[in-house]
Amino acid sequence: MTKNKKVNAAILIIGNEILSGRTKDTNTSSIALWLNSIGIKVNEVRVIPDIESIIIETVNYLREVNNYVFTTGGIGPTHDDITAQSISKAFNLQYEIHKEAFKILEAYYKVGEFNEGRQKMVWMPKNANLILNPTSGAPGFNVENVFCLPGVPSILKSMLGGLQNRIIGGKPILSHTISLRTVESEIAKALSDVQDNNKDLEIGSYPFFHAGKLGVSIVLRSEDQSKINKCSKEILNFVNEKKIKIVDR
Amino acid sequence: MTKNKKVNAAILIIGNEILSGRTKDTNTSSIALWLNSIGIKVNEVRVIPDIESIIIETVNYLREVNNYVFTTGGIGPTHDDITAQSISKAFNLQYEIHKEAFKILEAYYKVGEFNEGRQKMVWMPKNANLILNPTSGAPGFNVENVFCLPGVPSILKSMLGGLQNRIIGGKPILSHTISLRTVESEIAKALSDVQDNNKDLEIGSYPFFHAGKLGVSIVLRSEDQSKINKCSKEILNFVNEKKIKIVDR
Repeated sequence: MTKNKKVNAAILIIGNEILSGRTKDTNTSSIALWLNSIGIKVNEVRVIPDIESIIIETVNYLREVNNYVFTTGGIGPTHDDITAQSISKAFNLQYEIHKEAFKILEAYYKVGEFNEGRQKMVWMPKNANLILNPTSGAPGFNVENVFCLPGVPSILKSMLGGLQNRIIGGKPILSHTISLRTVESEIAKALSDVQDNNKDLEIGSYPFFHAGKLGVSIVLRSEDQSKINKCSKEILNFVNEKKIKIVDR
Repeated sequence: MTKNKKVNAAILIIGNEILSGRTKDTNTSSIALWLNSIGIKVNEVRVIPDIESIIIETVNYLREVNNYVFTTGGIGPTHDDITAQSISKAFNLQYEIHKEAFKILEAYYKVGEFNEGRQKMVWMPKNANLILNPTSGAPGFNVENVFCLPGVPSILKSMLGGLQNRIIGGKPILSHTISLRTVESEIAKALSDVQDNNKDLEIGSYPFFHAGKLGVSIVLRSEDQSKINKCSKEILNFVNEKKIKIVDR
């Protein structure tokens, strides 16, 4: 892949706790922000339950239609952690003890503490590449274009940095936000005209309520800074005409 | 549908702002918690971009395989709000001014304020049923089993209550959480044995880090309180044996 190609990814959140509403997913945002910074666009996110057949089917679909797939969750020591086993089956690989992961965890835990539960975490698809975990020892792994990360947000975040040189991104996706003290309906027409004028740039409009006041954030996204600059000028033109206040946000 | 049938749903988050990582989705959790309380299980969540063809294809798939589909986002006044138009196409319905919605917003806004931007919000699939919006006027709508809600979390939450008697749930899904001052690997084996003993009950294990200390929440979920009670007892047995502290969480 060259730096000029479009590179995309899917995120697959594996976990009943998200589907039940008990836990709010924040991993999507962490992964997506990081991917954007290295020029990879997230095409879709799916949240699925801890059910082997569904994990296999979804992974096999997503890895075909995206350059990269990032899964979160299900690689811990308990019975409901079935991601490594499911990925093995998805790729028709042996599910076995990963020697390097074994050594890492054997060294990480005190003598006598590397118990049966912890040993489950070194079972992986044959020849998986490890993703090192600077926070809590137990590594993630990848097979081809599927990267499996843990569900705990702080641990996941600590592991993303280590992936940087194993993933080939495209042109970084640049963004610029203009926040206004207005409501969407006041600018909808003008903004739509600007979008018509700038078809290959993504303009998002997001209402917010902050410190007791309503506002709208307009987000411009493109790989081309000059396109963002041009579009930004056109927006500031109508903002000035309408005497709308620009705010920090 | 009777109260004894299993009822399931999918949630479809429509919005580039979630895929870019800029905004963290909290609507999944609000909708899922409410659905659980009325006996509906969320099978899957998808996050997709503001692209008409993808919205149409995804809605048409999800509405076939789930009892209900809840969409969020894309029903505001700006150019990137294309949900109503896409749903019209998904159902092969005319996209037109909804007279009742028009009346509601005409009455909601002061004279002269019901401008072109705001009028966009009354364009809907022909004969859609309105979902009233006690917060900001503009209604959501449903066509058959697809319910379209806004993306702004506080507005969305205020609209869920009004749906209660239009959606037929199943047996409420009950849950019980036991939080322990331990780590997952210490209880993985014992918990797995309890799961083997209680196959038709869902046991989730979720590590947490709170107030400087590690812990694990074990979540039991079933439609049958007696099954939860039985399973809970078995867990407390090994918790006592292992002298693990139970904590509030």
